[in-house]
Amino acid sequence: MEKLYVIKIGGNIIESENLLDLFLQDFSTLNYGKVLVHGGGKNATKFAEELDIKSMFINGRRVTDKKTLRIVDEVYSGLNKDIIIKLFYNGCKAVGYTGKEDSVISATKRGLLDGVDYGYVGDINEVNGDALYEKIQQGYVPVMSPLVYDRETGYKLNTNADTIAYFTAKSLVKYYEVHLVYCFELKGVLENIEDKNSVIPEITPSYYEQLKQKGIISQGMIPKLDNAFEAIHAGVSSVIICKADDMKSIINEGASLGTTIRK
Amino acid sequence: MEKLYVIKIGGNIIESENLLDLFLQDFSTLNYGKVLVHGGGKNATKFAEELDIKSMFINGRRVTDKKTLRIVDEVYSGLNKDIIIKLFYNGCKAVGYTGKEDSVISATKRGLLDGVDYGYVGDINEVNGDALYEKIQQGYVPVMSPLVYDRETGYKLNTNADTIAYFTAKSLVKYYEVHLVYCFELKGVLENIEDKNSVIPEITPSYYEQLKQKGIISQGMIPKLDNAFEAIHAGVSSVIICKADDMKSIINEGASLGTTIRK
Repeated sequence: MEKLYVIKIGGNIIESENLLDLFLQDFSTLNYGKVLVHGGGKNATKFAEELDIKSMFINGRRVTDKKTLRIVDEVYSGLNKDIIIKLFYNGCKAVGYTGKEDSVISATKRGLLDGVDYGYVGDINEVNGDALYEKIQQGYVPVMSPLVYDRETGYKLNTNADTIAYFTAKSLVKYYEVHLVYCFELKGVLENIEDKNSVIPEITPSYYEQLKQKGIISQGMIPKLDNAFEAIHAGVSSVIICKADDMKSIINEGASLGTTIRK
Repeated sequence: MEKLYVIKIGGNIIESENLLDLFLQDFSTLNYGKVLVHGGGKNATKFAEELDIKSMFINGRRVTDKKTLRIVDEVYSGLNKDIIIKLFYNGCKAVGYTGKEDSVISATKRGLLDGVDYGYVGDINEVNGDALYEKIQQGYVPVMSPLVYDRETGYKLNTNADTIAYFTAKSLVKYYEVHLVYCFELKGVLENIEDKNSVIPEITPSYYEQLKQKGIISQGMIPKLDNAFEAIHAGVSSVIICKADDMKSIINEGASLGTTIRK
């Protein structure tokens, strides 16, 4: 089976044009099939502030009202297009998925949470792997934004890029040997949060239990790792959590960097 | 001298994704050097309305305040990126100019008009033809949005796409035999505004005077034609005013459609 990498990038890379350029240069050189999933970063919040559009928060969670959704849509779609264009300049034929009607992601508007309607926020049901596979076979690199389309209401919904990456990886396991890579600020999962170099090279399910019991894994990391193990159980071959700068050497040269999650 | 076409598209094409797709397919097939200049259309106004951001008008003219400018910037840049991506899909390597610091267009913020400050509106001083020439020689097709950068203030300024097209055409006459094409809704300059087929095939300066004296040319058309004659006097070989659908056959097949303005 051919190898395919689903790679997720987040805030720090997206908010710096320079970092994004460097990352996309690396991404373009990957020798395997690939899909890119990007988060939204803080650009939408900044744009809303410039327009004096207040974000409403209830119980610490943002309410995505109609205006916020329009802003998020404009900014995320703009970012998606930037990525597509930069990839083209690097010789990589990309296609964007930004929550238009023909989106490959199906999602449902989230219901009330403790009686509160948080607005246009979606939960992903599934990613259409067949449609993605077809595009990839045609030589395209899918680039997915965290906005999805709700067929029932006709609205776009705001979702989570980590989850899109997970569902995308899962949807492609019948066609490829899929590896899921989460790029973030740190070099990997750390044994000691104070020591940025204390990367744990590999985590298996039994080792994960030990790490949790010993309290070595920080609270914030647990949902990410739970997600990673779910992907593994759904047939994804490995999940790598690494710094964006290291992504290329890990994939193209097999460098032992970042944290790999395996069965 | 090699032929080069500077082509301007406006509102009607930009506001319909379908028309834009068709136009860009045609544009991609043009056998000559080419530059595309696009207007903004009504998308920015619609977006502002959705966000409840009121446009202020004084004496019937819009005031481009900071918020309006941010909206215009986001929407026009998004449109520019859409065009770049669609051109790529049609096999055409495009590069966007959207009023960033490295813009090839130099402009100055317009001063007070009858004592009123209309905000971030710019008058174009010149287009850097040498920089465009270099890009074109590298195989790029420049795509220009009506936003420009003011080096003095560091702000973007809103300008007029017709004028950008004119300055762009003028800036390239030392390198190419330049033809300037204004695509719009009608088939050309009409002898009788009621008869959409009464296209005047060719207008020379002396004929233009006759047409004006006889009152055949409508008020709205006069600035466009004055502009066209200025381009001709600046060394542009011809100015064509035509319907977007006819652009391809006029350029590639020499079809006698639209109105041609010559010396």
